[in-house]
Amino acid sequence: MLYEISERIYKLEKEGKSLIKLNIGEPDWSPPASIMQTVFQAIKNGKDSYGSAAGELELRKKIAEMHECDAKNVVITPGSKWGLYALLKTQMKNNDNAIIFSPHWTAYELICQEIGFTAKIINLKMERNFEINLDELQKTVDSNTKFIILNSPCNPTSIGLSEQKEKQILDFAAEKEINIIADDAYRDLCFDSRKERKFADNLIIANTFSKTFGMTGWRIGYIVAKEEIIKKIIALNQITITCVPLFLQLAAIKALEQKKKIAGDARKLCKKRAELAVKIIQDKMQFTKPNAGFYIFPKLPENLETNKFVLNLLEAGIAVVPGAAFGDYPKHIRISLSADNKKLTQALEKISDSIKLHI
Amino acid sequence: MLYEISERIYKLEKEGKSLIKLNIGEPDWSPPASIMQTVFQAIKNGKDSYGSAAGELELRKKIAEMHECDAKNVVITPGSKWGLYALLKTQMKNNDNAIIFSPHWTAYELICQEIGFTAKIINLKMERNFEINLDELQKTVDSNTKFIILNSPCNPTSIGLSEQKEKQILDFAAEKEINIIADDAYRDLCFDSRKERKFADNLIIANTFSKTFGMTGWRIGYIVAKEEIIKKIIALNQITITCVPLFLQLAAIKALEQKKKIAGDARKLCKKRAELAVKIIQDKMQFTKPNAGFYIFPKLPENLETNKFVLNLLEAGIAVVPGAAFGDYPKHIRISLSADNKKLTQALEKISDSIKLHI
Repeated sequence: MLYEISERIYKLEKEGKSLIKLNIGEPDWSPPASIMQTVFQAIKNGKDSYGSAAGELELRKKIAEMHECDAKNVVITPGSKWGLYALLKTQMKNNDNAIIFSPHWTAYELICQEIGFTAKIINLKMERNFEINLDELQKTVDSNTKFIILNSPCNPTSIGLSEQKEKQILDFAAEKEINIIADDAYRDLCFDSRKERKFADNLIIANTFSKTFGMTGWRIGYIVAKEEIIKKIIALNQITITCVPLFLQLAAIKALEQKKKIAGDARKLCKKRAELAVKIIQDKMQFTKPNAGFYIFPKLPENLETNKFVLNLLEAGIAVVPGAAFGDYPKHIRISLSADNKKLTQALEKISDSIKLHI
Repeated sequence: MLYEISERIYKLEKEGKSLIKLNIGEPDWSPPASIMQTVFQAIKNGKDSYGSAAGELELRKKIAEMHECDAKNVVITPGSKWGLYALLKTQMKNNDNAIIFSPHWTAYELICQEIGFTAKIINLKMERNFEINLDELQKTVDSNTKFIILNSPCNPTSIGLSEQKEKQILDFAAEKEINIIADDAYRDLCFDSRKERKFADNLIIANTFSKTFGMTGWRIGYIVAKEEIIKKIIALNQITITCVPLFLQLAAIKALEQKKKIAGDARKLCKKRAELAVKIIQDKMQFTKPNAGFYIFPKLPENLETNKFVLNLLEAGIAVVPGAAFGDYPKHIRISLSADNKKLTQALEKISDSIKLHI
């Protein structure tokens, strides 16, 4: 279905149709000019030769400082997706399994399938605000559970767990000697502004420059973990991607220097957009109010057929993603609140009107 | 040993020692300013969002044109190393094996190990000019041989096979229904200037922008193959690296537009350096005269202990790589002829003098 939608989008755009694309997990802001300038200067200065498979020491140090660990605990990766793939590929053995809370980012499951181990999926319910239940977690883990993947805030719900709940899960995992993988792609965009996550021995942090800094296509992210885990990822980097371009790593250093302001601005923008979305759609659909990021994951009324609804919407010029792309959520849609106010209002009103027509 | 050398280089440089580094497989030329400018313009124009996991259509078309195939036969990869990894990872099954001619680029063997299949290594002999013997090839292939990896010109010997020999190997493989993987990283640098390799059904071409264009740290390359093979690599890209940065792909398009001149200049430079090297070392060491690229792979006199020789050389300010890094060649060293004439002369004379001292 996702493929069919992509094809239709491609076709419609080819035909010259103007679309409001709220289907992509991509912010519409760009990194500041100073970051772009850094790339150019670096290339001009010859900072474009082979680099370390671990990443540049200066960047690793800066990241280590943020998470209160050592540079040896950090590896730079071409996006956090590669980081997660390399991590799972080098760590998962035979009958190991990983717990994934659903709705979930499609990549987790696809990576599990590719590597050939079991993903144990726990379906969270909108009716319970997508909260994680510790008893259920307790029942699901077994002696082969190696990782729990925690994506808080979550793609596609844009719900970040409370710090208290996160602590409960971390403590639970520590007790069971299970590692937590915290995919923190959207953490900077928590409306309540979180501190940087502090490294711990049973914690692995995956992060990316894509969302906070609007650098999706730059392909740069990182993994923070115990040194023995990092070493294995570095060894895989050496025989696959070699390194992340040095000039992009220098830009990432520049980005981190300005993180406070950039993240603050992005957070404010996301909050405003979420409020706008809530206001427009609240009488038409059920959803859990986002407290982070730039998604909303509403449920369509029962009588609506999701795929048909999404395709009709596309013909009307608005692209969103059917919930089935994120697990067993056939009645949901994911809307990326990633457009200017005017377009966003227009699109969300159109979505609401389409629903009114059907109820 | 390689690791020990890297550590020593790092230490010596930290101590402020100036080294002539002929150990890295990296040209010392840079891409023209227009290519750098393209990156900057592209980023400024917002060409930095998520891109296709297959690569940009315009770049794929340009590459397809070069190799006389369709854009569907091309996938853009972050370096040809990733291309080779993704290719072997998605194609090799159970008991499949691949033939590697040695001396060989270390990555082939490491990738085989990582993926867990057999690399059947055929050791070529300097005394026979590193020529491939078809009878030996015939004896080595078996019913499980899926690929023959052809690296012509070869890293580390800088020997390109004659077109006639290449044709014989391609014909042999076609008859046996084995696929040839042509790793053409150095093909543009053949002193006799070869035409672009033409795609064929049992041929897979791996290439990179690293060497010809001096874009090593940019991490961009490609694979040309049958569509069914390309589709599998695209699917792996989707769940790992996502895409190569769009702004780098636009720079690659710019690079291809200027390929004739850039490759021509690089070829001439390489030829001159090879001639210089041959002249300086010919009375001191045995070697096969390079007909391409920027390496030379001489054999040390029998009484010299290679590792000790290489480490002593390093203390004297010159870095080279012991032959053992490229297979069962313990008496060889690889010299990267990748420095200006003055430095190269100085380094090669120093190497020659060190040998004279010992014979």
